[in-house]
Parts: sequence; C-alpha cells; structure tokens
Amino acid sequence: MRIAILGFGSVGRGIARVLLAKDLGIAVTGLADSKSGIIDAGGIDLAAALARKEGGGPCGNPGVSPADVVAKAKYDVLVEVTPTNVETGEPALGHIREALRRHKHVVTSNKGPIALDYPGLRALAEANGVLLKYEATVCGAIPLIHAMQEGLAGNTISRLYGVFNGTCNYILTRMAAEGLTYEQALAEARELGYAEADPTYDVEGIDAGIKLVILANTILDLSTTLDDVERTGITLLSPEALQLAEDQDCTIRLIGEIIPDAGVLRVSPRIIPKTHPLVVEGTLNAVTVEADLAGDLTFIGKGAGSTETASAVIGDLLYIRERYVKGS
Amino acid sequence: MRIAILGFGSVGRGIARVLLAKDLGIAVTGLADSKSGIIDAGGIDLAAALARKEGGGPCGNPGVSPADVVAKAKYDVLVEVTPTNVETGEPALGHIREALRRHKHVVTSNKGPIALDYPGLRALAEANGVLLKYEATVCGAIPLIHAMQEGLAGNTISRLYGVFNGTCNYILTRMAAEGLTYEQALAEARELGYAEADPTYDVEGIDAGIKLVILANTILDLSTTLDDVERTGITLLSPEALQLAEDQDCTIRLIGEIIPDAGVLRVSPRIIPKTHPLVVEGTLNAVTVEADLAGDLTFIGKGAGSTETASAVIGDLLYIRERYVKGS
Repeated sequence: MRIAILGFGSVGRGIARVLLAKDLGIAVTGLADSKSGIIDAGGIDLAAALARKEGGGPCGNPGVSPADVVAKAKYDVLVEVTPTNVETGEPALGHIREALRRHKHVVTSNKGPIALDYPGLRALAEANGVLLKYEATVCGAIPLIHAMQEGLAGNTISRLYGVFNGTCNYILTRMAAEGLTYEQALAEARELGYAEADPTYDVEGIDAGIKLVILANTILDLSTTLDDVERTGITLLSPEALQLAEDQDCTIRLIGEIIPDAGVLRVSPRIIPKTHPLVVEGTLNAVTVEADLAGDLTFIGKGAGSTETASAVIGDLLYIRERYVKGS
Repeated sequence: MRIAILGFGSVGRGIARVLLAKDLGIAVTGLADSKSGIIDAGGIDLAAALARKEGGGPCGNPGVSPADVVAKAKYDVLVEVTPTNVETGEPALGHIREALRRHKHVVTSNKGPIALDYPGLRALAEANGVLLKYEATVCGAIPLIHAMQEGLAGNTISRLYGVFNGTCNYILTRMAAEGLTYEQALAEARELGYAEADPTYDVEGIDAGIKLVILANTILDLSTTLDDVERTGITLLSPEALQLAEDQDCTIRLIGEIIPDAGVLRVSPRIIPKTHPLVVEGTLNAVTVEADLAGDLTFIGKGAGSTETASAVIGDLLYIRERYVKGS
C-alpha cells in the first residue's frame, strides 16, 4: 500500500518512525510539510526526511507544495496530519476533498475538517468509492470510534461522557495532589510540554468541545457545531474547590458530555467520586458510553502523543488495506 | 440478512428479544434448542417461540434437531449460542464446522470451540470464503476483540491482564465491602443468580483461563490450551487477607494475565491498589492491554448477561452484513 503524508510535525514524524521500525508493507510516496515536499513513486527515504526535519530544515524540496503531493504523487491513501484549524478547517479540508475526488482513501488526525464538514466529506468519499477514517481525532490511542461503530453497532447510545483533554486533566491532577493553584499547575504543564504557550484551546474546553462535535456528528447522528457546545473551562478553579471535593472523597475533572436525545453537548468541571472509572490521573483520557444493549462501557488510555496518535492512524490504514486496497 | 440460531437459553433469547425490539433487518429462518427446532424460510415468529420457551416448553418441533437446522435452513449466518463444553467443544464444534463447510458465516458466544480449535475453524472459514466471529466469548459487552484486531492493528501487545470473571469479582467485592467469608459471599452470589449451583468453573479460574486461551490463540499468535494456564482460584481467600490488603489501600482481584513473549498465561488472586482502573466493583469485567504504540489501554464493562452478550453477537452480525452479505 502506498500513502502520501501531509504534515510532518509530531504526528507525521511519529508515523514515519513507526513505518521505519515496523515492516508493515506501507510505502510513503509523497510527503509535505508547510514549506516543502517530496514526491517519489519508488518510496521516500523516511530516515533522511526525518533527519532533515529534526535538524531544523524542511522535510523536502521547497518547490513541492502539499497541493502538488495531493495531485501528483502515486498513492492509495492520503494521510492528513497537519495542525487543526477549528475555524475553517483549511488548508486540510481542501486537500482532503481533492484526494477524495481523486478516488483516494483518506486517514486524518485533524479535528477541523471532521468537525466542520463530516457529512460533506463522507458523501464525497462514498461518491468516489473510497473511505474516510478519523480514529486519531478523538482520544488519541483509544480505539473509541472503532469500538462504537463496529463493536456497538446495533446499540443506541443514550449518553457519552468523559475526560477528553489530557492537558486539563494533568492540571487538575496536580492541583488536587499538591494543592497547587491553577497558574502553578499550568506553568508545570507548560514546562513538561503538556500545555501550549497559549493554552486557551485546551483550558477553555475548546479541544474537548470539538471532540464532542466529532462524536455527535459522525456516530450519534446529530448535526452540531462548536457553537452548540455549552463550555466552561478550568481557569477559575481554585485549590480550595479541589480540597472541598477531596474532603468528600471526590475530585474535579473537566467532563465532556453528550446526551443525544436531549441535544445536549456540554464541557464543564464536575465533582466525581474518586472511585469512578473516569477519575484518571495525569494526561490520560477516559470515556464512558451508556448503550442500551451493552450497558455502560468505559475506555481509558493515552489521549495524545506522537506514537499514540500514530497508533490510531496506522490502525485506520490497516483497516483500509484489509478491505479496499488490492494487491498490497 | 437471514440467520439461524442454535441455543435458546439466556443468550439466544436475549438475541431474539433484541431482534423483536429493534428493526435491524435480520430475519431468523432457523432456530433450535437441545430438544426441538423450527425451520421457516419466511421468518420464524420469535415472539411465539419465546412464549413457548418461557412457558417451560421446547422452542419448536421435537422432530427438528440442531443438525437439521444447520443443514436445511436457509441462512447467511449461523449464530451458535449453546452452552460451553470446555472438554470437547461439542456439539457446537461440529455444528460450526458443518455451517462453515456450507459457506455460511458463523457468529458464536461459545468459548469451547474457539478455545479448542480456532486455527482449524479459521482455516475452514477462509477455505469457504466466510467469516467466523466470536466477540461474545470474551468479556461480554466489551468490544475487546474488535478493539484489538482493528483499532490496535499494527501494535505489538506485550502484556494483557484483567478481571475476566464477574462471579469472582462479585464475591471479592462483597468480601471486601462487608467482611463476609468466601462461603457467605458465594451464597449471596448464588441467590442473585451470579453463581451456578456448582461454582467450580468460575471460582477455580477455569472460565477466566479459557478466555485467556481465546485471546492468546486468536489475537496474540500463541497456540495454547487450558492446561497451559497456571491457575489459582479464590476459594481459599480469607476475609483477613482482604482486610490486610484494605489496610494498605489495596484490594484483591482475580486477575488473568498473558505475557506473550514469556509464554505466560496465569489466573490468580492479586493485591492491587484501589485506585487502579482494574479495580471494578460487582460483576464488571476490566482488561488492560499494554501495546507498544498505543501504550496502556483499559476497557471496562459488563462481562455477562443476556442482553449484554446479545450486544456482542449483534455487533458481529452487523459487521458481517456490512462486508459480506449482498442485497441485505
């Protein structure tokens, strides 16, 4: 199977490292970061591209753009792993559409396009006889979308809730464990690389909200946007609030919740008993699904990370290969 | 899609009730319990069959055997949900083989045939161009096999461990919570229908051991039998041992564990910190998978129950329909 990769940041490099380490029978014939690209039908030298990128340079030739890779490389699946733009989804959205039009399967870790236009993309994929997979957009390494779409096929989901943002969970874990203020815990998260310089996207619940929109629109038959999500972040939480919860054998977690029948999408800090399976530590994610036949199911795992996200992307690639790619 | 169901106990009736309650487009054209059967290409009246069975009678005609249903009914998928025989796998094993030879897909909740001869059954399925699915054999409603085979494709599993038996977990939960003896907690479990009159299969770790054999042989590329599982049950555990664990903020759970590289399959009571995600209450199951790319993933849910097991069977049926059954 031949793939083209758009995006050579943490996720793209994670995928490249896995492909170098494991013989999965996947050749990379196109690769682009925002400033350069490579097209090589014989298979790109990923080790050399990684070395260039990690040396601070571009991954390839400045004369080759992502659009060139989409249009001119020879590939079965486009792997779109550029950073998320939650306003427009671009430039990823355009590249994904173009690949689907060219009858190429698409695997993406990019929340923007899936949150903004899943129905359109899915229709385009179907019209062109190809698949669009996006396991990596929600909860990193946890195969939540596989589990819900296939394992729970036939179930009706009455509620879905959980910890969708590892940065917030790290901050809350540290505030509770050490009595830190929000600012102190955030500073620590930044030092460890768990929080961005501008943490708004995580701490205001935007990231969790987008994941809810993706689950709502792709699995729960809703049609929602980020504006439909009631959002409260964690920036105003005090150590005293966490201590108060602690006194009752509880703690506070930023919980994203969907109640499909009520049309509720909500992200807010909640007080939860410490024995609840959703009370995970550090940067973990955890999701509980309430299903009519299966009952309550909880999934816990790493929600982010280069290799963990690569795991989800590679699961999607092998899924496509098993079903749709001939002779590979 | 047309299915034939062998077995009309708790699981079979659970499936029938779901098919009556939900319009899944699945018709039942064959049905048999151990003493009777029905074949009707136009679709069996499931409500009437349920009423007969629940009134204490046979589900159908005493002149129709399970073998007749396998051989003569018109169906796409055989749903084999008779009780487990861990020694020979029969009569289920013979029925499954015959259905596969007749180019019928098979979905089963029956641990015996899968634990005893997965390689043979899989080869037979492949030779006949059909699928064999068995999600319901391990951890009931938890889509563990889907998650591992598809979501974690590309990962290498270095260890897998968890709570695989709800009966034992209920007994241990009650012993810890109320200071009951093993005998007292077992009596309570029996009254609630969580333990059989002869509880050996559960409390000696045989059930958990068979589930380990299934996971080892079907997902982890091992070739094992129940004799390869080191087994210690829970019958000798004292309330004092649980209290001792409690004093250290720990508790005791019957843990099944596979370490593929070391060839280890083991079921034994273990002391675990109470904050560990595997410390689930009551009859729940919980499994942690250590994967090289995805990291640690934990799955928690109901491991048994009529509707919960039906959920897994129906997930498998819809999986087969989406991929392999034309015009349905």
